[in-house]
Amino acid sequence: MVSQFSETESDKALFDHRAAWFEGSNDATRKLLHITQRPEVISLAGGLPAPEIFPVEAVANAFSKAARENPATSLQYAPSEGVWPLREFIAERYRSEGAKTVAAENIVITTGSQQGLSVLGQTLISPGDPVAVDEPSFLGAFDAWRPMYPSFTELTWDGNMPTFETLAGEDESPPKSPVFAYCLPNFRNPTGESMSDQQRQNLVTLARQQGIFLLEDDPYSALRYEGVQPNSLLSYASEPGHAPYDGCVIAHGTVSKSLAPALRVGWMVLPKRLVDLVTIAKQGMDLCTSPLNQFATLDLLKSGLEGKTAIAATALYKERRDAMLEALTRFMPNGVSWTRPEGGMFIWVTLPPSLNSGTVFHHALANNVAFVPGDVFYIRNPDPHTLRLNFTGVSVEKIIEGVERLSTTMQDLLRPAA
Amino acid sequence: MVSQFSETESDKALFDHRAAWFEGSNDATRKLLHITQRPEVISLAGGLPAPEIFPVEAVANAFSKAARENPATSLQYAPSEGVWPLREFIAERYRSEGAKTVAAENIVITTGSQQGLSVLGQTLISPGDPVAVDEPSFLGAFDAWRPMYPSFTELTWDGNMPTFETLAGEDESPPKSPVFAYCLPNFRNPTGESMSDQQRQNLVTLARQQGIFLLEDDPYSALRYEGVQPNSLLSYASEPGHAPYDGCVIAHGTVSKSLAPALRVGWMVLPKRLVDLVTIAKQGMDLCTSPLNQFATLDLLKSGLEGKTAIAATALYKERRDAMLEALTRFMPNGVSWTRPEGGMFIWVTLPPSLNSGTVFHHALANNVAFVPGDVFYIRNPDPHTLRLNFTGVSVEKIIEGVERLSTTMQDLLRPAA
Repeated sequence: MVSQFSETESDKALFDHRAAWFEGSNDATRKLLHITQRPEVISLAGGLPAPEIFPVEAVANAFSKAARENPATSLQYAPSEGVWPLREFIAERYRSEGAKTVAAENIVITTGSQQGLSVLGQTLISPGDPVAVDEPSFLGAFDAWRPMYPSFTELTWDGNMPTFETLAGEDESPPKSPVFAYCLPNFRNPTGESMSDQQRQNLVTLARQQGIFLLEDDPYSALRYEGVQPNSLLSYASEPGHAPYDGCVIAHGTVSKSLAPALRVGWMVLPKRLVDLVTIAKQGMDLCTSPLNQFATLDLLKSGLEGKTAIAATALYKERRDAMLEALTRFMPNGVSWTRPEGGMFIWVTLPPSLNSGTVFHHALANNVAFVPGDVFYIRNPDPHTLRLNFTGVSVEKIIEGVERLSTTMQDLLRPAA
Repeated sequence: MVSQFSETESDKALFDHRAAWFEGSNDATRKLLHITQRPEVISLAGGLPAPEIFPVEAVANAFSKAARENPATSLQYAPSEGVWPLREFIAERYRSEGAKTVAAENIVITTGSQQGLSVLGQTLISPGDPVAVDEPSFLGAFDAWRPMYPSFTELTWDGNMPTFETLAGEDESPPKSPVFAYCLPNFRNPTGESMSDQQRQNLVTLARQQGIFLLEDDPYSALRYEGVQPNSLLSYASEPGHAPYDGCVIAHGTVSKSLAPALRVGWMVLPKRLVDLVTIAKQGMDLCTSPLNQFATLDLLKSGLEGKTAIAATALYKERRDAMLEALTRFMPNGVSWTRPEGGMFIWVTLPPSLNSGTVFHHALANNVAFVPGDVFYIRNPDPHTLRLNFTGVSVEKIIEGVERLSTTMQDLLRPAA
């Protein structure tokens, strides 16, 4: 696996062997999204928050305040771990949510939560190491890790019982366990599904037994439209009385969905034994996250604005989710099924065996409606009969019209040739 | 080389083999700087711009304006390449400085220029690949690349003639040329020295002949206190009539030294054939640089403020450089020599063979003065008789006092035991 990457002699070789991680990367999606941005196309392919929810005035004021109040700190380089008051604020929030041993020392601020994925990959993955993924999953995570040449394996489920797939050892050597497993317990991108409380407990127990780090990615939990929030993996891994936290779960958070993506402020809750390693890797990646953005974000969080923005977003998105679910029920042909997410941004559609989502995509574009074919969300075993719909970025009217166009496309393809 | 990194089975193994790139990394320096921040210590160890030069009001206004003017764009996710008007502005500046084929398509915005180093490492380095460095050099670059497991080689000089050291091939295979070579042509960190015009021409010619990418890192060129700016490597690689640019030089730029580090806006000028690859790697690392920070930076650049800030910084820093040079001449014992930089932030001191900079460092701290021992700026052949002094972050009075304390420390160590 690794040896084929050791012969770079020319641009040609460089481009050839990079193909391994560029193929199926976000790039395909990027180009696809470009096409779908034609004004006549109703795009259900996005994954962006609705700009209506951005707290514009508050952000403008928070930045100018942060710049003026303490410019020698807020306009300078910052510690690579992040500014201390923000680390304290975030740690306190986790403690209040049940992860009682999390201390400010456990928090490392990142330039958006995507950087958290990347920096962890750099810290934990050596070439060839197995990394377990709960497929289908967030393709940005695959992109973050491909440059480190992991060997992807699967985190699989038998009901509530998880299994970490091992990688067969070469020659006589024993099978290798994953260095970490990745999952999105809440309203996962792309399916919108959540893990049950029992699944969470079992996963943490197994990870702890096998000495495997669990990455708990959680960009969507502020966007819940119904039901009750289960405990986080982190809270199950955080045993009382042992601060600072040093368990097996690494939690990622962000304000991109609850305030605005352009803050580019995310964070990791790290077991104590990883903090120094991750900080060094983060330092190599961008020295520090802007202290100006960090202080502005802290100001917005302290003002309670995140809660207000989340309430506005939740109201808007719930209406759109309901409209999409209703339109799917009303228009979709027999044999098509879909998830019913309690929150987040996506609905996952499964087509009958006779329909391929790639084929549907091209015909749908001709009908001026777009979505993301499901195969990009898999690393190893793509299901060609799946697709992802986004309901947060389009109006109710367009959602209804878009689902109707999509259904018409499918019905045309399902109709036997005359 | 690579095989030893394929046996991660436990935390123990993980930490052991990470040691290879953590050892001698910025971490040592980070801890050292922490010690040197005691108020009684005069620290000549820093590398930060003077906060007096930050254009506070202009930054505060630029951010609130950018947030309010077009929030649906400035507070949303942005294209991974960067926002188009900023890419256009930067390309135009390079063209006006002599790199006539640079187009907006060649520019990729990064979250500070450190991210440029990291993303290029991810794009270009496969495990074991040789990377040539002009030692001593910026240790943040080493940190950015270590996670990709390069084999570092040297870019060496015989007068004006450069040579890229190759890596001996295994078994019968031919020697491997570096995938890229890294240099700082202007006021290099840590020595303060610059490359001559002839050296620049020869380096570009050789790189082109041998098919090697040249990374031209240039954070300091706005801080020139005397002399004339030679042409950039990029301008020699940019042949007229072939836009968009597709030469062998990759140039890095930043506003951290000319406006404020907390903007976290840098850029790369990329040969056309690398733009897509680098964009995908950048996308995996942090999705995008904040469009809010990008639009605010563009506003500051368009207003001409960078020039004004650079004039203020240049006046302040020149005075400090002159004070340090004068103090060195006045106080330093015989046998100590130093560079006389025409710009930038650093002076490089070479000690007589009987003095080791690590020993001097510990005694100097006891005398309440700090610097950075030179060995951290080398990857392969550290010179234990070197050290780096910073003159931008301290007042003239403290510079004089600090250099005097440092000289006293050296004289004490040089005096034969009674």
